[in-house]
Amino acid sequence: MENLQQVTHIDNVRLAEDGSAVIYIDQTQLPGRTIYKEARQPREMYDAIYQLQVRGAPCIGIFAAYSIAVLAAGIDAPDFDSFYAEYKKQSDYLNSSRPTAVNLSKQLARMDACCRANAGAYRTGLLEALRAEARAIHQEDIDMCYAISDYGLSLLKDGDTVLTHCNAGPLATSRYGTGQGPFYLAKERGMDIKAYADETRPLLQGARLTSYELQKAGVDVTLICDNMASMVMKQGKIQACMVGCDRVARNGDAANKIGTSGVAVLAKYYGIPFYVLGPSSTIDFTCPTGDDIEIELRDPDEIKTKFYAEPVALPEVKCYNPAFDVTDHSLITAIVTERGICYPPFDESFRRLFPEQYAAGEKEVPGK
Amino acid sequence: MENLQQVTHIDNVRLAEDGSAVIYIDQTQLPGRTIYKEARQPREMYDAIYQLQVRGAPCIGIFAAYSIAVLAAGIDAPDFDSFYAEYKKQSDYLNSSRPTAVNLSKQLARMDACCRANAGAYRTGLLEALRAEARAIHQEDIDMCYAISDYGLSLLKDGDTVLTHCNAGPLATSRYGTGQGPFYLAKERGMDIKAYADETRPLLQGARLTSYELQKAGVDVTLICDNMASMVMKQGKIQACMVGCDRVARNGDAANKIGTSGVAVLAKYYGIPFYVLGPSSTIDFTCPTGDDIEIELRDPDEIKTKFYAEPVALPEVKCYNPAFDVTDHSLITAIVTERGICYPPFDESFRRLFPEQYAAGEKEVPGK
Repeated sequence: MENLQQVTHIDNVRLAEDGSAVIYIDQTQLPGRTIYKEARQPREMYDAIYQLQVRGAPCIGIFAAYSIAVLAAGIDAPDFDSFYAEYKKQSDYLNSSRPTAVNLSKQLARMDACCRANAGAYRTGLLEALRAEARAIHQEDIDMCYAISDYGLSLLKDGDTVLTHCNAGPLATSRYGTGQGPFYLAKERGMDIKAYADETRPLLQGARLTSYELQKAGVDVTLICDNMASMVMKQGKIQACMVGCDRVARNGDAANKIGTSGVAVLAKYYGIPFYVLGPSSTIDFTCPTGDDIEIELRDPDEIKTKFYAEPVALPEVKCYNPAFDVTDHSLITAIVTERGICYPPFDESFRRLFPEQYAAGEKEVPGK
Repeated sequence: MENLQQVTHIDNVRLAEDGSAVIYIDQTQLPGRTIYKEARQPREMYDAIYQLQVRGAPCIGIFAAYSIAVLAAGIDAPDFDSFYAEYKKQSDYLNSSRPTAVNLSKQLARMDACCRANAGAYRTGLLEALRAEARAIHQEDIDMCYAISDYGLSLLKDGDTVLTHCNAGPLATSRYGTGQGPFYLAKERGMDIKAYADETRPLLQGARLTSYELQKAGVDVTLICDNMASMVMKQGKIQACMVGCDRVARNGDAANKIGTSGVAVLAKYYGIPFYVLGPSSTIDFTCPTGDDIEIELRDPDEIKTKFYAEPVALPEVKCYNPAFDVTDHSLITAIVTERGICYPPFDESFRRLFPEQYAAGEKEVPGK
């Protein structure tokens, strides 16, 4: 249990006790070295995000919230207006570290609203409010991860072995994680749930992060290459598949790390349930189907040279390197959110579970 | 055409002119360095096979045949009986280097028969006969690869794009190859057949060897990670899949590089034909189904540390690392041999095309 808590109850991002720094695990050094760093200056915070020392959308959001709370305390200004001018500058600077990361701008916007709402309490009360808001953002993520993990675990039975792909665990989120949350919660409850982790080429998040987290937590984990999933399923070793998600369309089509759709096709063929786990914020109620999800194409060197001691293909060989793929809703057994489990038809389940968001999204669906 | 011939007309394995060594390309050093090595001692030959410096079932068979011819010449014995005792010991040693490769044991058995048949000609005539037999095995492989490539190409139409897995090209065989032979033959005939090559983890034969060979031969090739096959199939980019095979059971179940069965499941799901190409020598007529094929399990470090600048997972993380998997016959559209194309039910096709081998194998099927 002690080992487990070192994973699920380390805060991979947290505020220093005196509020003067954000303390975080440098994820670029995993799995070889577990190094905690302290960020005090804007540049250190910017670099932590930019260099992917802090990664995973929820984790970046929490880090940014704590960061701006730390920076606010360091601003020396006679009144709120001059304070806020400097605050805004630093917030914008942090926000520019990864311009496409949605959680980053979303949580900085929430901190900004908190800042303006507490203008009257400048200085001590305002700084206290910012720290409280950052802690609230963190706590909400913990609660959400717990709820998702709890719903996810309800789909498993003691003794099951679950195949997972990529990383949606404690490092990317808070405490339990999403796609891999049920493993940790099972461990905590004394259940025996074993894991098979796809290494997840090209960036190997499954090997570097998922197998690291699970091993450290004392979960029985076996690392495989992505192309071994078919064999372990055929051998009857796998009772369920669980993955996270980056964006889910209204019809249940789910974009997640490249290779997820292949796992889902295999699971269907071998008669194994395939579950997608994620916060409801990843459901895009304005997006009709997976065809409307644009897939990021990345650098060929991620396939050919990154990580390797020597290039593994001739430099002139063409590569195709999509970062994500879309798993067709027909391949998904259920989508697990913090508010409950959605079964097909997903469109209807979503409308029942998230009536307001569903209705609001409908107005913005292109062509409606 | 010159580029093409540099790929399809190099002998990646051959006998040294004085018969004292086997000369071969060390495939573990590709694509960075094209290095020819000479093997003279049993241990060097064993290691060349075990360490995959020489790989690909037909190539291993040719290498083993040349190897035992070289070793035979080095045995210092007064008469055939004492010669043969030592010969058998060395042949068994070579044969133990890899369990799943049927060509290894088959060609060593053929050499053994040649050896015993020429007992009367011991010593000079026997050694000459062994060298001639090894050369005949090599030439037959060249002819066979051409025939397989020709039949395979007849299943494609100009403009098709074909997904392939692992390496069954010139390096694994002789000249054109088997699973990838149609690409080279198409190029030679001025047809436009494009390739997608799975990188084929953990040992990356698709990246290091297949994309190397195809690129060098001027074939339009795109390298992908194994887990991207689902996406390119879904996008309609692939008109057929073609792979080699290591051992085929009587019912058509085909053992090939790990990940092959996953490609076959995806192909079935997306409605794409899946072809297995290989010489009839890979059909094991004594093996009833794929369940009877022993699968080699290899070192976890192939997943965690080999190739990498730093380990990609904690040292204590368990890995499961099967070298091959078995593709169920129900997933295979056709099995292409040097004697023709076999369609399901494979058991019947095999009996029609290979009546003698089929009948002979039947007597040895366990439980019959």
